[in-house]
Amino acid sequence: MNQGDDKIALILSASQKRFGRYGLSKTTMNEIAADVNMSKASLYYYFKDKESIFLAVNAKEQNDFTEKIRQVIQAERTAKKMLFDYTVYRLKLLQKQLSLAKLNNENYHEVKPLIHSLINTFKKTEVSIITDILKKGVERKEFKIRDVNSYAELFIDIQRGLRQHRFSGYIDKGIYVIPARVYHKLKEQSELFTAIFLKGLCNN
Amino acid sequence: MNQGDDKIALILSASQKRFGRYGLSKTTMNEIAADVNMSKASLYYYFKDKESIFLAVNAKEQNDFTEKIRQVIQAERTAKKMLFDYTVYRLKLLQKQLSLAKLNNENYHEVKPLIHSLINTFKKTEVSIITDILKKGVERKEFKIRDVNSYAELFIDIQRGLRQHRFSGYIDKGIYVIPARVYHKLKEQSELFTAIFLKGLCNN
Repeated sequence: MNQGDDKIALILSASQKRFGRYGLSKTTMNEIAADVNMSKASLYYYFKDKESIFLAVNAKEQNDFTEKIRQVIQAERTAKKMLFDYTVYRLKLLQKQLSLAKLNNENYHEVKPLIHSLINTFKKTEVSIITDILKKGVERKEFKIRDVNSYAELFIDIQRGLRQHRFSGYIDKGIYVIPARVYHKLKEQSELFTAIFLKGLCNN
Repeated sequence: MNQGDDKIALILSASQKRFGRYGLSKTTMNEIAADVNMSKASLYYYFKDKESIFLAVNAKEQNDFTEKIRQVIQAERTAKKMLFDYTVYRLKLLQKQLSLAKLNNENYHEVKPLIHSLINTFKKTEVSIITDILKKGVERKEFKIRDVNSYAELFIDIQRGLRQHRFSGYIDKGIYVIPARVYHKLKEQSELFTAIFLKGLCNN
């Protein structure tokens, strides 16, 4: 890691805390600069605005998740357990994403197209992780399925659809603060679905 | 059926054809009145505006579906087949709903709150139908599940979530004309999910 990477890591980590506490709309470049003991000019050298920092923080969360889940998968013995781990860690990532995204209506519309491109790229990563898990399950004779890719895409689309459906009343209005009971309902459904899905794939 | 009901049935059936062909935004009360050989004043006696007719047409589609699916369920021998029938008929209803809803952006925002209340009521009906199917499956020892209601709600939420996820790029922009390939992808996923769900519930 060179000095620039070091600075960037510092900025991202400080911004992550600030976004998590105050959200994007209530955070300023001045505050981030102060947090990392940097002049405003130096901060602007690395990021042109707080929206770019916000996206970089989100991308970092996604990469951390991918790395973590790859390790977890390596350590597990059954594909069944891997898929369950996936669901649990994905929900934890969701909580972090929600915490970062305390966006107000105005900001939401600004960053929405950028977030969408992040989401689409991440979806491909997610489908490829699930595809790997399902392939392992087939190799180990845990699952009896043919078109592994369709199953992986369906799994991810259902998890995303459940989130979208559960949160739609909130996110439509640009409110990203999801009440705890709504999150818990989603968690319950997400886990029940994973259990049914696994049973539906099983070899007996 | 009294004469008023007769007239209403006539108005709804004519409007249904017109909405299906031209959408809400391109239909006028004048045209509907002409279609049913009625003066504009008489039409306004039954419905205050075209949006009210639109909602009544949608409500009628939902009731027709509920009636039809109850008949189909009566005729089927296995709960498994009932759930599959449900998925197939629900997709047909969706096609009708999409065809009626050629809304432009402006109209969409007008009728959205009204449509949402229709959607929420209909969701309860859907969950109760699926609950009945699952209960029959448990009685007949096809399924081995305890909390039938959670499974029924999850089934409906997943089907709704899949639709929402698949259509979000279009409906966000108020465009209700869904390309055929997008509909077919949804149909594929909806049916594959039903198959996995059924296998996940089975008793062996």
